[in-house]
Amino acid sequence: MLIVMKPTATEAEIQQVVDRIEEMGFRGHKLPGRQLTAIGITGNKGPVPAERFESCTGIAETISVTQPFKLTSRQMQAEDTIVDVGGILVGGHLFHVMAGPCSVENEEQILRSADAARSAGATFLRGGAFKPRTSPYEFQGLKEEGLQLLAKARERTGLKVVTEVKDTETLPMVAAYADLLQIGARNMQNFSLLEAVGRLQKPVLLKRGMAATIKEFLMAAEYVFSTGNQNVILCERGIRTFETMTRNTLDLGAVAVLKEMTHLPVIVDPSHGIGIRRHVPALARAATALGCDGLIIEAHPDPDRALSDGAQSLTFEMLDHLMADIRKLVPIAGRVLGTLPS
Amino acid sequence: MLIVMKPTATEAEIQQVVDRIEEMGFRGHKLPGRQLTAIGITGNKGPVPAERFESCTGIAETISVTQPFKLTSRQMQAEDTIVDVGGILVGGHLFHVMAGPCSVENEEQILRSADAARSAGATFLRGGAFKPRTSPYEFQGLKEEGLQLLAKARERTGLKVVTEVKDTETLPMVAAYADLLQIGARNMQNFSLLEAVGRLQKPVLLKRGMAATIKEFLMAAEYVFSTGNQNVILCERGIRTFETMTRNTLDLGAVAVLKEMTHLPVIVDPSHGIGIRRHVPALARAATALGCDGLIIEAHPDPDRALSDGAQSLTFEMLDHLMADIRKLVPIAGRVLGTLPS
Amino acid sequence: MLIVMKPTATEAEIQQVVDRIEEMGFRGHKLPGRQLTAIGITGNKGPVPAERFESCTGIAETISVTQPFKLTSRQMQAEDTIVDVGGILVGGHLFHVMAGPCSVENEEQILRSADAARSAGATFLRGGAFKPRTSPYEFQGLKEEGLQLLAKARERTGLKVVTEVKDTETLPMVAAYADLLQIGARNMQNFSLLEAVGRLQKPVLLKRGMAATIKEFLMAAEYVFSTGNQNVILCERGIRTFETMTRNTLDLGAVAVLKEMTHLPVIVDPSHGIGIRRHVPALARAATALGCDGLIIEAHPDPDRALSDGAQSLTFEMLDHLMADIRKLVPIAGRVLGTLPS
Amino acid sequence: MLIVMKPTATEAEIQQVVDRIEEMGFRGHKLPGRQLTAIGITGNKGPVPAERFESCTGIAETISVTQPFKLTSRQMQAEDTIVDVGGILVGGHLFHVMAGPCSVENEEQILRSADAARSAGATFLRGGAFKPRTSPYEFQGLKEEGLQLLAKARERTGLKVVTEVKDTETLPMVAAYADLLQIGARNMQNFSLLEAVGRLQKPVLLKRGMAATIKEFLMAAEYVFSTGNQNVILCERGIRTFETMTRNTLDLGAVAVLKEMTHLPVIVDPSHGIGIRRHVPALARAATALGCDGLIIEAHPDPDRALSDGAQSLTFEMLDHLMADIRKLVPIAGRVLGTLPS
Repeated sequence: MLIVMKPTATEAEIQQVVDRIEEMGFRGHKLPGRQLTAIGITGNKGPVPAERFESCTGIAETISVTQPFKLTSRQMQAEDTIVDVGGILVGGHLFHVMAGPCSVENEEQILRSADAARSAGATFLRGGAFKPRTSPYEFQGLKEEGLQLLAKARERTGLKVVTEVKDTETLPMVAAYADLLQIGARNMQNFSLLEAVGRLQKPVLLKRGMAATIKEFLMAAEYVFSTGNQNVILCERGIRTFETMTRNTLDLGAVAVLKEMTHLPVIVDPSHGIGIRRHVPALARAATALGCDGLIIEAHPDPDRALSDGAQSLTFEMLDHLMADIRKLVPIAGRVLGTLPS
Repeated sequence: MLIVMKPTATEAEIQQVVDRIEEMGFRGHKLPGRQLTAIGITGNKGPVPAERFESCTGIAETISVTQPFKLTSRQMQAEDTIVDVGGILVGGHLFHVMAGPCSVENEEQILRSADAARSAGATFLRGGAFKPRTSPYEFQGLKEEGLQLLAKARERTGLKVVTEVKDTETLPMVAAYADLLQIGARNMQNFSLLEAVGRLQKPVLLKRGMAATIKEFLMAAEYVFSTGNQNVILCERGIRTFETMTRNTLDLGAVAVLKEMTHLPVIVDPSHGIGIRRHVPALARAATALGCDGLIIEAHPDPDRALSDGAQSLTFEMLDHLMADIRKLVPIAGRVLGTLPS
Repeated sequence: MLIVMKPTATEAEIQQVVDRIEEMGFRGHKLPGRQLTAIGITGNKGPVPAERFESCTGIAETISVTQPFKLTSRQMQAEDTIVDVGGILVGGHLFHVMAGPCSVENEEQILRSADAARSAGATFLRGGAFKPRTSPYEFQGLKEEGLQLLAKARERTGLKVVTEVKDTETLPMVAAYADLLQIGARNMQNFSLLEAVGRLQKPVLLKRGMAATIKEFLMAAEYVFSTGNQNVILCERGIRTFETMTRNTLDLGAVAVLKEMTHLPVIVDPSHGIGIRRHVPALARAATALGCDGLIIEAHPDPDRALSDGAQSLTFEMLDHLMADIRKLVPIAGRVLGTLPS
Repeated sequence: MLIVMKPTATEAEIQQVVDRIEEMGFRGHKLPGRQLTAIGITGNKGPVPAERFESCTGIAETISVTQPFKLTSRQMQAEDTIVDVGGILVGGHLFHVMAGPCSVENEEQILRSADAARSAGATFLRGGAFKPRTSPYEFQGLKEEGLQLLAKARERTGLKVVTEVKDTETLPMVAAYADLLQIGARNMQNFSLLEAVGRLQKPVLLKRGMAATIKEFLMAAEYVFSTGNQNVILCERGIRTFETMTRNTLDLGAVAVLKEMTHLPVIVDPSHGIGIRRHVPALARAATALGCDGLIIEAHPDPDRALSDGAQSLTFEMLDHLMADIRKLVPIAGRVLGTLPS
C-alpha cells in the first residue's frame, strides 16, 4: 500500500503517518518525490484498511499495490528515478556509456582504457578489481591495487568508476574507491550483500542473475531499496538458455518490460549478452534503439591478451565506431547522450 | 566441400565437375553467383580429395566446408542471397516490412489491414488462412476462403502476400495464392514439409522453432535448399526460456550470428518475440538497428476483438508511429527501405 | 463439460444427449467406461447450462471441466485408459518394456534385436524405418523395406511392433505394418499428422516435444483424441534445457504430474532422456520406481557401429542386466510386468 | 596433474614432492587415500613436465588431469569419498535420509519433526534458521534461536543437524551448532562463502544452483576443496526450465553423470525438485532407485500452516509410507540404509 501526501503536507504530518504505520506493526518508507512525498507500507500480509489513517491530516490518497516488489514498482512511483553518481545523473532522458576492461590488469592497461573510453564519449570507466571466477584456479583480480589504479584513472580523466563488489568483507574497501558499486549476476540473490549495500548510500548497479525472472530481479532491487538505498540502476546482461553458440541470450524484451514496471534506470551489457566481440556492436545498437538508459561495454587495449573476457572485449577502434552509431540512435530513442561536466 | 569455378568456366566445364562428383557417389549442387559459379558437394562422409578433380578444367579453387549446414553457409557463398518475391527483392542492403493480422477473418478486416500496411510503407501483407493452433478447439482459419481474400487484398494494394502453409496436403492450394510461403515455428523440423516446399521454386519464409538452436535452424533451411529451392528467408521469432512475463524471448544475438554464418536474408518477428502489444515497437526498433533484413509485424483494425493473437497485434496508428522510427533507423543500420514498384 | 450417464442408460438415451449437444452447435464425444458412459462436450466457449439437458433421461450428473485439454483429462475420466495393442494391454497396473534399435538397418540386425528383446522380457520391438533427421545428409531409414523386416521380426518372436510415422503421405504404409504408431518429438505439434492418426483407430505412441510444456503435450494428445482415436500412450523423452553434458534432461516430475492429470498411459524413454549408454540403466530404474507404465529403450547388437543413436543404445547384455532390476522394481511401484501371451 | 605415491612412500617423500611443486610456483594438495597418497597440482596453466620430478623418490606414477575441476574429479581419486559427519558416514555404499521442516518455527514444531524423522528412519534433521528469501518481506528465520532449537532436537533424538548458512558473517554461529553446513542453491557461486567454509573442516552440503551446469557445480565444490575442506556432499535439487507446472525440473540424469565424474557423495532433494507435496514420494523413489547416496526431504507436522515451503512438505504419515518404499529400493540400488548408532 502507498499513501500519497499532499504537496502541502508538513514534515510532521508525514511523520505522523509513518508512526501510525509502525504502531500497526508494519514499516513505513518515506519516498520523497519532486513535488510530493509518498509513504510505502511493507511488512503487511494483506490489505491495510485505509480508515486506519482517517485521523491523519495531509493525505492526498491511498493506493493499493499488487506487485510483490513494492518500493521499486511504477505503482509506487510513476516518475523515473534519477540516480546521482557523483554529479552524473543516470535515468530520465539521459543515456550513458560505461566502458573499460573486464579486469584491471596493470597501470598502463587501465590508463589507456580510461583515455579511450573518455575520448569515445563514455562517462564511466568499468574495470574489475575483485573478480568472481567460475574456477578457483583463474585470475581473481588485483584487489586493492586494482582499486587504486581505477582511482588514478578517474583522477586523470574525470570518468566515474564502476567496479564489482563480491562480498561484504571487501565492501568497505570497494566502496571507498568506487562511484558505482556493481553487484554481479552470480550475487543477484546474495541477500546479505544486497542488504549491506542497501545500508550504504552509494549508487548500486545490480546485474540480472543468469536464470532470474524479471520478478526476481525486481525483488533483488527491492532488498537494496527496502534497506534504505534508493540509488539502484538495473542491468540486463543476458540469460541462460539452451542456445550455446552465444555465451548468453540477451533479453531485450525484459528491458522493455522493466522500463514499464519499475521507475529505476535500466542499462544493458551487450558484451556478456553475446560474448563474441564482433557481434557486440550490433547488440549495443539494438539496445540503444530499444530505449534503455545506457550501456556497459567491455573494451581493452589488446583484447586477445586480456586476462579475462578477451573474447568479448572491443578494441578501442571498434568502440569509437560504435559510439558514432550510438550518437545517431540515442535521439531516435528519445534520449540525450550524457556527458562529463566540462 | 565447395568447388569454385573460374569466372570464365563454361557450362560444359561446370557439368563435368558435377558429373565427376556424382560418379563418386555424392551429390553436386550448382550455386550460380553474380560473377562465378560454385559447386557444393553433399553426401560425403569425410573430406573429398581435391586431386579427384585434377583432370577437370575451369576450376579456380576447392574449399573445405566444416559446418554441417553446407549450402546455406557463408563458406559456400560469401555474398548475400537476394530472394526475388514476385519482383520484390529481399536481402542484400534492402529492408522490408511485412504487416497484417495473425489470421484472415473476413473481407473488411483484411482489406482494411492491407490498406493500412500499404499506407504505412510495408511491401508484404501477412495473414493466416490455415492456422496451426495448440488446442483443437480454437479457430483454425478460413482456409481457401482466406487465401482468396488475401489475393483480393493483393490485387487492390500491390502488396505481396505471405501466408503459412501447415502441411503437404494443402501446399498446392496455398502455393497457388501465396507469394511467400511461411513455414511456422512448430513445423521447422517437419522435414517432409521442408522437402515438399524445397521441390517448388516458391520463396519460403522459415521461422525458427521455439527450442531450435541456430545450427538446427540452418539445418532446416538446408533441407529446403538441398531439395532444390534456394529462395529461403529466415525469421527469428523468439525462443522458449524460463521467463514467463513475455510470451517468448526474442534472440537478437542469434540474428547477429546468423547474418555471419549464412548468406540467407534474416528477418525478425517482434510480435511473437514478446507477445505484448505495447512492447512490440521497442523490439522492432531494436531489431532494425541491429541490422536485420526486415520485420514481420502483426497489426489488426481492432486488436482487442481479433480471433487470434490480439494481445500482440498493433493498431494501425501504432504501426504508423513505428514506421516513422524505422525510416530513421534503417539507414543507420546501413540499409535501404524496400518499396513497391510504383 | 462432461455428462455422466447412469449405468442403466440405454443407447437411445445416450444418443439423445449427443443429439441435443449437436443441436446447440457443439460436439458430443461418447466416452464408454467399464460401468457407465460419459459424454464430453467440446466446441463450447463458455459453460453450457445444465438445464438444457433437463428433458433428457438417463443422466446421472453433469460435471464442469476447467482444463483446456478435456477428453484426455482425469476430470473427464477418472479411471485409467487401457490401450489394447493387438491383444497386449498397456496402462492400468501393467508395465511394459519396448526395446530395439533406433533404426532398422538390415535383417540380421533386427532379428537379433528382436530375439534379444524377447528373451529379456520385452513385449514390443522398436525400430525406425522412416527417420526424421536433423541433417538432410544423414541416414533416413530403410523405408518400406524396414517395415517388412519389422513384420518378419514380429512373426518370429510375437513381439508387437512400434515404429515412427513421420508424415501423412507414408501413414497408410506405416499403419499397414505397425502395431503401435509412434509420433516423434519433432512432430508433436504437427497437427495435420495428429488429426490423420486420429482418424485411424490404430494405437498411437505420442512423444513429448523437446520444448513442450505438460499442457501442450496434453493438447497434442487431445488432437488425436478429439478426432476419434482414444488409443493414445504418452511418452516422456527428455526436454531441452541449458545443460549440455546430457543430450536432454529427462523430466520425471512431468511423469508424476501427467499420471495425475490424465487417464492415458505414460511411458518413459531413458535412451533419449540422457543420450549416454552407460547412464541409461540408472534412469530406467528411476522411471520404473517412480511409477510410469513402461519403458522404451534403444538396444543394438553392436551399438558402436549403429547407423543412428549408437551412443545411447544398450548392448543386449546391458539390457538383460537392466531387466533383472526392473523385475524387482515393478512390484514396488505397484505394477505387474506385462508379458506376451504364451 | 596428479602424482600418485607408492603405498610405501614416507611422509618425507610426499613432502619433497609438494615442495618441488611449490618451487615451480604451483600448489600441491595432499590427497590421502586408504592405501596410498596422491598429490594434486593446481595453479598450472598447461601440462607440467613429469621429468621435473625425476629426482623425487616414492612416486608410483603421474597422471594428467583434463577436467577443469581437478581435486573433485574421479581422475584424481577413483574411490568414493566418505564424509564423516560426527560419526555418521555419508557416501560409499551407504544411503541416508535427511528430513525435517523448511524452517525452524518453534520448539514444539522442531521437536515433533525430529521425533517423526527419527522414527521414520532418518539420520539427519533438516531445518533452516537463516532463510534466504526471494522477497525482503517474507519470514527470514528464527536465527540463533532456531539454531538452539535444532541443538535441542539433536540432543533429544541423536539426529545430526543440517542447516543452511547464508553468509560469512553468520558462518561462525551456524558452524557452532550444525553438524553439516548447507550452502543453498542461490549461493552456489558465492565464492567468498565457499572459501570461508573451505577454511573450516566442517562437512558441507552444497546444493546445485538453479541454472548451474554440472561442470559449474563441480567447480563450486572445487572452491571448497581447494581451500582445504574435503568433506563435501553434493545435492541435486532441480534446475530451472521452461516448464512451469512444477517448481523446478529435477535433473536425475545429472546425478548419474555426477556419480561418474566425481568421487563426492551425491544426494537428491525431491521436495524442491518438484515443489508439489503429493508428487514428492514418486521422485524420492526414482532418485533412490537411480543410485544416489541419500535424500533430503521436507516434512512438517502441519504443512498447510508452515511459514515456508508448506506446499512441498510431507506430512509425517506420508514420510513413513515413503520410508517403507525406500527400505525396499535401497538394496536394489546396491546400497545399505544408514542408521544412527544405537
